[in-house]
Amino acid sequence: MWMEKVRDIKWKEGMDVSGLVDMLGNVGFQGAELSRAANIIADMKRNGAKTYLTFTSNMVTSGLRGLFAQLIKLGLADVVVTTTGGIEEDIMKAIGEDFLIGRYSPDDMALHEKGMNRIGNLMITNESYARFEDYMLPALRKIYKKQKRLAVSELLHELGLMLKDEDSILYQAAKNRVPVFCPAITDGSLGFHLFMFQQDHPDFIVDVVRDFSNLLASSSFDDKKGVIALGGGVSKHHAIFGILLNGGCDYAVYMTTSSPHSGSMGGATTSEGKTWGKVKVDANEVTVIGDVSIMFPLVMARAMDAMKAEGLIGNG
Amino acid sequence: MWMEKVRDIKWKEGMDVSGLVDMLGNVGFQGAELSRAANIIADMKRNGAKTYLTFTSNMVTSGLRGLFAQLIKLGLADVVVTTTGGIEEDIMKAIGEDFLIGRYSPDDMALHEKGMNRIGNLMITNESYARFEDYMLPALRKIYKKQKRLAVSELLHELGLMLKDEDSILYQAAKNRVPVFCPAITDGSLGFHLFMFQQDHPDFIVDVVRDFSNLLASSSFDDKKGVIALGGGVSKHHAIFGILLNGGCDYAVYMTTSSPHSGSMGGATTSEGKTWGKVKVDANEVTVIGDVSIMFPLVMARAMDAMKAEGLIGNG
Amino acid sequence: MWMEKVRDIKWKEGMDVSGLVDMLGNVGFQGAELSRAANIIADMKRNGAKTYLTFTSNMVTSGLRGLFAQLIKLGLADVVVTTTGGIEEDIMKAIGEDFLIGRYSPDDMALHEKGMNRIGNLMITNESYARFEDYMLPALRKIYKKQKRLAVSELLHELGLMLKDEDSILYQAAKNRVPVFCPAITDGSLGFHLFMFQQDHPDFIVDVVRDFSNLLASSSFDDKKGVIALGGGVSKHHAIFGILLNGGCDYAVYMTTSSPHSGSMGGATTSEGKTWGKVKVDANEVTVIGDVSIMFPLVMARAMDAMKAEGLIGNG
Amino acid sequence: MWMEKVRDIKWKEGMDVSGLVDMLGNVGFQGAELSRAANIIADMKRNGAKTYLTFTSNMVTSGLRGLFAQLIKLGLADVVVTTTGGIEEDIMKAIGEDFLIGRYSPDDMALHEKGMNRIGNLMITNESYARFEDYMLPALRKIYKKQKRLAVSELLHELGLMLKDEDSILYQAAKNRVPVFCPAITDGSLGFHLFMFQQDHPDFIVDVVRDFSNLLASSSFDDKKGVIALGGGVSKHHAIFGILLNGGCDYAVYMTTSSPHSGSMGGATTSEGKTWGKVKVDANEVTVIGDVSIMFPLVMARAMDAMKAEGLIGNG
Repeated sequence: MWMEKVRDIKWKEGMDVSGLVDMLGNVGFQGAELSRAANIIADMKRNGAKTYLTFTSNMVTSGLRGLFAQLIKLGLADVVVTTTGGIEEDIMKAIGEDFLIGRYSPDDMALHEKGMNRIGNLMITNESYARFEDYMLPALRKIYKKQKRLAVSELLHELGLMLKDEDSILYQAAKNRVPVFCPAITDGSLGFHLFMFQQDHPDFIVDVVRDFSNLLASSSFDDKKGVIALGGGVSKHHAIFGILLNGGCDYAVYMTTSSPHSGSMGGATTSEGKTWGKVKVDANEVTVIGDVSIMFPLVMARAMDAMKAEGLIGNG
Repeated sequence: MWMEKVRDIKWKEGMDVSGLVDMLGNVGFQGAELSRAANIIADMKRNGAKTYLTFTSNMVTSGLRGLFAQLIKLGLADVVVTTTGGIEEDIMKAIGEDFLIGRYSPDDMALHEKGMNRIGNLMITNESYARFEDYMLPALRKIYKKQKRLAVSELLHELGLMLKDEDSILYQAAKNRVPVFCPAITDGSLGFHLFMFQQDHPDFIVDVVRDFSNLLASSSFDDKKGVIALGGGVSKHHAIFGILLNGGCDYAVYMTTSSPHSGSMGGATTSEGKTWGKVKVDANEVTVIGDVSIMFPLVMARAMDAMKAEGLIGNG
Repeated sequence: MWMEKVRDIKWKEGMDVSGLVDMLGNVGFQGAELSRAANIIADMKRNGAKTYLTFTSNMVTSGLRGLFAQLIKLGLADVVVTTTGGIEEDIMKAIGEDFLIGRYSPDDMALHEKGMNRIGNLMITNESYARFEDYMLPALRKIYKKQKRLAVSELLHELGLMLKDEDSILYQAAKNRVPVFCPAITDGSLGFHLFMFQQDHPDFIVDVVRDFSNLLASSSFDDKKGVIALGGGVSKHHAIFGILLNGGCDYAVYMTTSSPHSGSMGGATTSEGKTWGKVKVDANEVTVIGDVSIMFPLVMARAMDAMKAEGLIGNG
Repeated sequence: MWMEKVRDIKWKEGMDVSGLVDMLGNVGFQGAELSRAANIIADMKRNGAKTYLTFTSNMVTSGLRGLFAQLIKLGLADVVVTTTGGIEEDIMKAIGEDFLIGRYSPDDMALHEKGMNRIGNLMITNESYARFEDYMLPALRKIYKKQKRLAVSELLHELGLMLKDEDSILYQAAKNRVPVFCPAITDGSLGFHLFMFQQDHPDFIVDVVRDFSNLLASSSFDDKKGVIALGGGVSKHHAIFGILLNGGCDYAVYMTTSSPHSGSMGGATTSEGKTWGKVKVDANEVTVIGDVSIMFPLVMARAMDAMKAEGLIGNG
């Protein structure tokens, strides 16, 4: 059995990211897994796989949001699954709100008094939530006029159509007809706004069950299918469960900070996925462990440079 | 400022669990946090707090399910939030399915061929899923006859009424009028079954938005409120978000294997919760890090022995 | 293949620890691994294995120190390996110093001003270090009078002979002729004291190389051998490397909070140990992931109750 | 208080690493910490701080070894601390041995039979260890002829002088008069070789205590001092303890996969370090959490590009 050798890495002035990721492939440990992930993601595109991209809301709070929107724009994400916080914060940014960067161990009581809500080392102000509420109610009114009973992905499509931000996930998804699934749509401020609206319009229905047909229709049994699952939770599970019903993934990249030892969805590996048929037994798969805020831009830069060189994608 | 001292722990034959947890309080590290958690949970009951209990589906796969059901029975959980997998596996066990214990690093391809689906070191067979499907379709028919549009917690109440298992979460919740919320109800086999049923009965609606009023009604602004959040994800978020809308927790115990460094919901600490008002600034709170399968029985044994001694609960 | 079933756990008033650990064996996830660990540790004694116990210094800061001393006293640890901090803090406690329990996220600048040195949620004062220094210099003088060139384990034996504390690791080790290895003896205050002493006594030599023969002699190729490795670092490596040279472990229990993904010693599993021959291919082994401050007292209580019932150990 | 804003990141073809790291500074989560680390490391050089570089042996197994050697060559590491495995594997690579890259969950019994020793996803063959032994015995003989009693760093200096590999840590350290400390020198094969040699040459002494004076002399109280601590264990502790004795760090970058919750050295944060005086209260410091195999090349590329642009270092 032929095996790759460890090769010592060295700095050169002005290295490019793709070259660095290639070198990390011979550094070992998670560097080797990261390099493998870049190749698998490029293979998804090379082989025309339907690609499911899943992420948790904190990643939309972070600056990864623009990259997610770009992936949709460039045809690298055919289906998106996220949580309500991800929807909310995408819209907030689209309407001009700024999120702030602080430290991990601040004085949380002082932050509370200033109306700054913390997510790790990031902050969202109460004002941003207030302006989001002001935005949502008229938006829901417009949607209700068009349609009284919508599946979640249809609701998100309508919301996306109203945005005017190239860096918005919902905007790019709506424009590029990429469905965005959000299996727990009411779990956040948006849920509260939907509830307030329904109080006045009892025939307004967000039909989660009907969205299942959209999930099933998002790829076919015969399609090659791939998943890029960032973090865990219902976003990850919903994507791989949907793919399971259509026969399982041919390509799978999981990125997570969780470990398998607690049996959590976040920690579930691509290998575990094979027992369920979520990941095909002969799939090209890798689980990379580490912070997605660092690793995902790195891995996508490598994969996208390769795709660009092969004429598979245009400029960002 | 007075501080507790570290005290050396020693084995005695036949130690009881409560005594051990008390000693862990002076061992330090997570032992000290665990002991603090037991006191906070006992305080929730002593002070009549409305208690929200949240857990992820893997914990229902594990043997913690019986303990969750018991907590509901004894009046120690006034509101429950979980994910679809937790609902499914509670029902599976209630109708007689067994889950198996293996190892963490098995031959996943061999498991797949045997139809054994792995979750960490636990396994669920394909047959269990098949029998679950056979059970669900008539169950949904019965519910539909009574009501065509239900909030999720109402659906779960109906499902609970049909079960006959003292160790079932849904059964005890239905019997004791404890609402069970599941913000991502379609994210699993149950979602598929609901979808199949709706295909034949298009007026069957699972109304997630309406459930928001039930979430708001599950405690009042004036109630003392507590949360025991096991793991992360939408279960944890939904509970603390619901509590936030009612003024925030007075008592909070988070148990998790996640770390705060990635900004995930699983890793979010009780201190971070204070910035949002999810946890009151002067709340009695602790975040304990470690495997819930070990720590939760330990902490509850301590808390429940105390409550029993004070006449706050009966026998299990 | 027969497999254990998951069994629901429930609280009963006044449960004993051994019963709880047995139940955890059927709860799953780390509970199942913990129960397995208790059985393996009892088997070490049942089968007369030479048992190597390793731990890091923070565990001696914590209240686990008394349990370690007790294990030595009861003949459950035939060889001990730790780091310098573990030696220092064992002596500090033996001469009457108290360590304190605080919180994980305190005001570290304020602690610094108060002379309180933090290790997670534990604190050691500057005064304790000062009194430790006052104790060590005369102690070293006494030892030097007896012997000018000592292996590390011989030095630690002499130090143990001078202590008068039943709960001291060094005291019990000296009394019971259990060697204590500390491969990085100078890495701490003790190193500074040794250095100061050697300045005045240049012929004072701590011979680390000679201690290798003591490590080799601590078990034979023909002995059954077991290891209980708590945490990682040189303590863990030194024990399993020493055992490797004598043919590998028949029994291995690793407990750690580290994951295997970074290739660290802390995260190295018993399975990985088999590739090296550190753990025999057919060994009885388990890796348990979680906080040792909670899990180790739990696992030892179960194992020791079993040993006591079988007449293998006396009372603590 | 002014705070940085989160900025959305996007791919551009052929991005350079420094640009990416700068963007990560506005992505948030560990990306923000990583960017901060790059600035702190550049500041160490800008302000002429004595820089302590510490790493664990697995990082020398990986391809990071070449980068460590390069940092020494370029004057970016004034003091090095590592473990015995790091010394061994640096020498092995210098005499031509190759390490291999595999997967994390292989068949460990099969690897054992093939004589392939696993460290995460890396492998070292038995043959490499055999050839290392063949190399060491004559090398020790040569050193013994020159000097019979050596401090550890002196022994490592002599070993470095014998190597002829630009990518070797020991070679570059010897050439550039950078002391390499290894507080647990006997903890590995090298310990066994030293022991075998001492059997025949009883007056051969590796004087760990004497090395303390070299540690103290490696910086002065008046020097600005910085530390880059990769991973945990005695390497990290020895460096920060040595710096503490000289007044504490002005700059500190810790990179680790460990969390603070267990009180381990690996998880100890720069903030905790302030309570001890290891890190000065007003130091420029950051703790970055994640896999060093990915993050360290990234952070050094950014820092070194900046230093190069400012004329502080030459080409690699």
